[in-house]
Amino acid sequence: MAESIKVPLDVPPDKKNEYLSNYQEITKGSGHLMLFAGDQKVEHLNRDFYGEGIAPDDAEPEHLFRIASSGKIGVFATQLGLIARYGMDYPEVTYLVKLNSKTNLVKEEVMDPFSNQWIDIDQVVEFKQHSGLKIVGVGYTIYPGSRYEAQMFRQAAQIVYQAHQHGLVVVLWAYPRGVSVKDELDSHLIAGAAGVAAALGSDFVKVNFPRGKDDLEAAELLREAVLAAGRTKVVCSGGPSIDVKAFLQRLYYQIHVAGAHGNATGRNIHQKPLRDAVKMCNAIYAITVEGKNVEEAMAEFQD
Amino acid sequence: MAESIKVPLDVPPDKKNEYLSNYQEITKGSGHLMLFAGDQKVEHLNRDFYGEGIAPDDAEPEHLFRIASSGKIGVFATQLGLIARYGMDYPEVTYLVKLNSKTNLVKEEVMDPFSNQWIDIDQVVEFKQHSGLKIVGVGYTIYPGSRYEAQMFRQAAQIVYQAHQHGLVVVLWAYPRGVSVKDELDSHLIAGAAGVAAALGSDFVKVNFPRGKDDLEAAELLREAVLAAGRTKVVCSGGPSIDVKAFLQRLYYQIHVAGAHGNATGRNIHQKPLRDAVKMCNAIYAITVEGKNVEEAMAEFQD
Amino acid sequence: MAESIKVPLDVPPDKKNEYLSNYQEITKGSGHLMLFAGDQKVEHLNRDFYGEGIAPDDAEPEHLFRIASSGKIGVFATQLGLIARYGMDYPEVTYLVKLNSKTNLVKEEVMDPFSNQWIDIDQVVEFKQHSGLKIVGVGYTIYPGSRYEAQMFRQAAQIVYQAHQHGLVVVLWAYPRGVSVKDELDSHLIAGAAGVAAALGSDFVKVNFPRGKDDLEAAELLREAVLAAGRTKVVCSGGPSIDVKAFLQRLYYQIHVAGAHGNATGRNIHQKPLRDAVKMCNAIYAITVEGKNVEEAMAEFQD
Amino acid sequence: MAESIKVPLDVPPDKKNEYLSNYQEITKGSGHLMLFAGDQKVEHLNRDFYGEGIAPDDAEPEHLFRIASSGKIGVFATQLGLIARYGMDYPEVTYLVKLNSKTNLVKEEVMDPFSNQWIDIDQVVEFKQHSGLKIVGVGYTIYPGSRYEAQMFRQAAQIVYQAHQHGLVVVLWAYPRGVSVKDELDSHLIAGAAGVAAALGSDFVKVNFPRGKDDLEAAELLREAVLAAGRTKVVCSGGPSIDVKAFLQRLYYQIHVAGAHGNATGRNIHQKPLRDAVKMCNAIYAITVEGKNVEEAMAEFQD
Amino acid sequence: MAESIKVPLDVPPDKKNEYLSNYQEITKGSGHLMLFAGDQKVEHLNRDFYGEGIAPDDAEPEHLFRIASSGKIGVFATQLGLIARYGMDYPEVTYLVKLNSKTNLVKEEVMDPFSNQWIDIDQVVEFKQHSGLKIVGVGYTIYPGSRYEAQMFRQAAQIVYQAHQHGLVVVLWAYPRGVSVKDELDSHLIAGAAGVAAALGSDFVKVNFPRGKDDLEAAELLREAVLAAGRTKVVCSGGPSIDVKAFLQRLYYQIHVAGAHGNATGRNIHQKPLRDAVKMCNAIYAITVEGKNVEEAMAEFQD
Repeated sequence: MAESIKVPLDVPPDKKNEYLSNYQEITKGSGHLMLFAGDQKVEHLNRDFYGEGIAPDDAEPEHLFRIASSGKIGVFATQLGLIARYGMDYPEVTYLVKLNSKTNLVKEEVMDPFSNQWIDIDQVVEFKQHSGLKIVGVGYTIYPGSRYEAQMFRQAAQIVYQAHQHGLVVVLWAYPRGVSVKDELDSHLIAGAAGVAAALGSDFVKVNFPRGKDDLEAAELLREAVLAAGRTKVVCSGGPSIDVKAFLQRLYYQIHVAGAHGNATGRNIHQKPLRDAVKMCNAIYAITVEGKNVEEAMAEFQD
Repeated sequence: MAESIKVPLDVPPDKKNEYLSNYQEITKGSGHLMLFAGDQKVEHLNRDFYGEGIAPDDAEPEHLFRIASSGKIGVFATQLGLIARYGMDYPEVTYLVKLNSKTNLVKEEVMDPFSNQWIDIDQVVEFKQHSGLKIVGVGYTIYPGSRYEAQMFRQAAQIVYQAHQHGLVVVLWAYPRGVSVKDELDSHLIAGAAGVAAALGSDFVKVNFPRGKDDLEAAELLREAVLAAGRTKVVCSGGPSIDVKAFLQRLYYQIHVAGAHGNATGRNIHQKPLRDAVKMCNAIYAITVEGKNVEEAMAEFQD
Repeated sequence: MAESIKVPLDVPPDKKNEYLSNYQEITKGSGHLMLFAGDQKVEHLNRDFYGEGIAPDDAEPEHLFRIASSGKIGVFATQLGLIARYGMDYPEVTYLVKLNSKTNLVKEEVMDPFSNQWIDIDQVVEFKQHSGLKIVGVGYTIYPGSRYEAQMFRQAAQIVYQAHQHGLVVVLWAYPRGVSVKDELDSHLIAGAAGVAAALGSDFVKVNFPRGKDDLEAAELLREAVLAAGRTKVVCSGGPSIDVKAFLQRLYYQIHVAGAHGNATGRNIHQKPLRDAVKMCNAIYAITVEGKNVEEAMAEFQD
Repeated sequence: MAESIKVPLDVPPDKKNEYLSNYQEITKGSGHLMLFAGDQKVEHLNRDFYGEGIAPDDAEPEHLFRIASSGKIGVFATQLGLIARYGMDYPEVTYLVKLNSKTNLVKEEVMDPFSNQWIDIDQVVEFKQHSGLKIVGVGYTIYPGSRYEAQMFRQAAQIVYQAHQHGLVVVLWAYPRGVSVKDELDSHLIAGAAGVAAALGSDFVKVNFPRGKDDLEAAELLREAVLAAGRTKVVCSGGPSIDVKAFLQRLYYQIHVAGAHGNATGRNIHQKPLRDAVKMCNAIYAITVEGKNVEEAMAEFQD
Repeated sequence: MAESIKVPLDVPPDKKNEYLSNYQEITKGSGHLMLFAGDQKVEHLNRDFYGEGIAPDDAEPEHLFRIASSGKIGVFATQLGLIARYGMDYPEVTYLVKLNSKTNLVKEEVMDPFSNQWIDIDQVVEFKQHSGLKIVGVGYTIYPGSRYEAQMFRQAAQIVYQAHQHGLVVVLWAYPRGVSVKDELDSHLIAGAAGVAAALGSDFVKVNFPRGKDDLEAAELLREAVLAAGRTKVVCSGGPSIDVKAFLQRLYYQIHVAGAHGNATGRNIHQKPLRDAVKMCNAIYAITVEGKNVEEAMAEFQD
């Protein structure tokens, strides 16, 4: 699964080695990204972390860091505020700073979504230097179709450009949303969002897994987005499913049928108790980064 | 109640001692915060300071400084404008600069709340140097669920980052509010707000005390927020109650049942005449900082 | 009426003498402010300057400068544009630059009031140096209760901080206004507005004279605002009355009953012919700055 | 018609000579301004330049430059973009850069007018240096009464201040407009707008010619605006009339009855073929700058 | 078709050679522009690139670069993000960076169009230096008639000025649009939009081809826009037609009847398979740049 990496040209010559090193670190040399998403404390407030069916471990944010430290992952994505507070005890983790977040309190009927940039790239770079942490990239969410897409596209374009100036890797979350968006799981629309991220110059774009009559058909439909994104690599969310095997099978389809280059998973990992969450990471990592099949991955989980 | 303090990693190495010193000062070495809130002249205009049931002393802002000077407190929080005008006569007080404020005139039906930053961090730092006052931190209010949360989250993230760059401690007031917020006293929502503050990297977060069938149940419900905030410490408002013993009992539950690390109290202190207000501070301080029980605290008040 | 002046702590040490000198100049050493308001060409367009009952002298802006030059006043407040155009002929006048203004064309039903800052503090300081004029302070209007109070509070806080950095004195006009404001002449609300100005750190705050059954009762009600403002001194408008003696009596009550530290008067001065306008200044000055009584002041007017 | 010029005090001492030179150039030493307005390609799109009753010459923007080059004018006002593209062939023309423009497509019922600043003063200064053109001033339109007047007043105040810092002369177009404006041709309102421009510190203000029962009465009504503007000089539009003699008569009234200091004319010049347009300039110039009467001016036109 | 180029005066003297070189490169020395538009992955999402009647080659963005590399074109216009990701493999292509883009998801009934600037001119210049690519110009879309035209006009004016400061050529796309625009294919309105671009100082303006009873009449109507634009050169879109000969005939009319100086074509090229797309480029180039007639151009296509 090794590949020769094409460094984007907005990375200045003297930062190419740093970009390559960050890119190898985030993909563990495989060209595939396993992103452990831990930014939902704002997006979903405490709904994902506390309540029926959620392991009590998940009530505290440190659970996320314990998983990121013990499980096999490509990168752990969360807000700078949490990294600043726990990073000293988890220096071995590879981090991606999620730069914007919003709550789910304001409904689309009230206002189209606008997720504002919290932290600037030069602050991330400064923070990386001061903290000594392995920060390899930044993330940002865009909502194409929102009345505020203009503000977010500007922020995203600036983030990509400036992050590349410093050799950092960029992941854009691209979710069509707002009152103007009729069906955010339509594969054609998802391909459009992937193309927007490519035009913005992102290294990776996280998109929704499209609706299909089953996961195999959905993966086939996702291929349009993979093509549309071109050299920007598509990673996919696993959705709310919780059956482990079905989840891993879907992941496998995303990579081997659609041509996705990885996945971004949150709830399916951190809502489990630490031991299970770590094994879930390992299983996902087996498929995404290590090129294993579903049975091999299940063996990791049941280990 | 001593603890080893984990300095957040956005505090640069050469400011760690200053942060530690400010943190020790604001918690009086206990890890617990007793914040005397004196910023309501904007939030509530003159309603909290003048009228039936309010001591005539409270009509003048100097009353707040007299209390802060004579009572036992962790820190006195108010706007820079008032600190600049009275600080020369009260240099012994420990100050926290409240950076944003709004009036209560515009109702939520007219416009979701937006409280704008008045003063920048570099101005606070400059003011601290010029004035020689003991300014140990800054405060800022966010309203998750407001149509303007995007603007406030950005300001809050920048305030945390920049304040930490200068070794200052940060307290965020986090109140879900706006037409999209159905029940701001719901414990699950309060836990969500605490998590937002954690993601923003705040040192302390002040939240509402949730609704329960009694104060003990409310404190048990508050535990979810304490867990969600992780290493960001929760402090709680005492609410509008005025019976001193009930107030102190509630405080005790917040700390010993919910695991809160302090409280922020305004009206229950400053609406009393100076002598009583000072004793009220001392009683609150006894529970919050000195680890005493309700009876011991009442003895302070009745002293 | 002399007093020892407490220099606010946001005035840096090397600017304290300049602040003291400006403060003495604006109060003529009395601690009381007689502000001649000449900024209404924007607020009221030409309504205050031309028409029935208004002296023909008032049709030209130079009338204001002639009065400011010949009458006894503390300071003449107007926009920088007018000062720049007439100041070379009136260098003896003490000036305060009014930094924001709006017209009265847009009604509150159409849009809540927003008065935007025109000129920055560093420009005022530069202008003072280049022109050699006696510019001792700046003014700014806030509308608490407007949907745009957030923008104006930020501007006001920055103006106070930056003006004090340069030793300039600040006067805030604080008028609760907008569709959310039910009664802008309510004394409790006026006290709230005065408290907001104190929190913003202003040296003086101009408020409306509250409604009372007569001027004496109104002055008694105004006392709440004087207390709420604390060390920020309250100055009051005289309102639209035109009987000179009643006007002076009201002023006297404002100072001696309410404890106000001066007044800001426009129309009651400049709508008169030059000779009468000058005498009106002198009469107001007699009460405000020279500590005389109504009869003595009337003698100045009838002189 | 010569006069001693009072340099406004926001012109720094080392720029006074440049201001004086620009002022003499724009008024041709007369103190009166004949401004040839060529900025309507945005304001009116192509309606003023192409169609029935408009000379075919006017279809191309170079027509404006040809007129400005061959006719007698004080200054030619247009956008920087056009000056940059034609100036190399018309270096003899005196230019004023119009800094903002909007189209007439969005009606007031849809949105109050907002005309945004396109180019900054330091760019105009840089452009003047690089191009070597005779740029003597800048222009900007304000719409008092628009919901966006706050934004425009700020831009206008900054433009005046910064232009004066560089010795440039400023002309403000002041048109009360928006859903809140009932009658933009009311003389009292026009006087108000002139006063706003004076408060903003403009050198000249262009206002609408008020409605009167005839041009003579209208000119008498305009006198209120001339007084209100004080040392800011009023120039007036000629309106849509096309009879040359009536147009010149109106101009004469504006100057000799109302006391206006010039005029700004566009369509009445450029909609004519080049030869007639040049003669129209000369006729207007005769009245405005050379102090001639209507008959003498008509002779210029019929020459 | 050679011409002597007039360098606009906002190009500083030391950048004139660079501007001339870029201008010669973008027009291949002909003064005419053949622009291959590849920015629709945002404007039209994936609709233009995937589906019935579209060659499978078009599913991937690299198709655009392959065409630009093998076909005869003046310049290839697309977003910086895509150029950064593919440019290393296509260094021979002449590039124009499209600076703003929006999706088509938000309909005009929901919100007037606002397309925000993604990347600043100094970043384009820096990118050009770091990448070594042949970047000769920048592009930006304005929507006259949108409620947001004020924001876009400001951005456009700044882009033209700053791009010229660095010797870059500017193409503005000018499309009247929004609820206030009744008929965006009206030739008079299109001429107005062309005039706005001229006032903004653009080198080229792309406008819609007006509606006529046939292409010949439409071209005659387009002449008004060519005149209105003056020295700003008009280029025209070919519209959605797909019959090659009709398309080329229309192009010929645009140039030889209307006086347009080129064309901007996207879908009519890239929706074809690579071989046909290249031949289509060559055919368009034959008419636009090489001055050939329709039959000669068809020979290129059928070659």
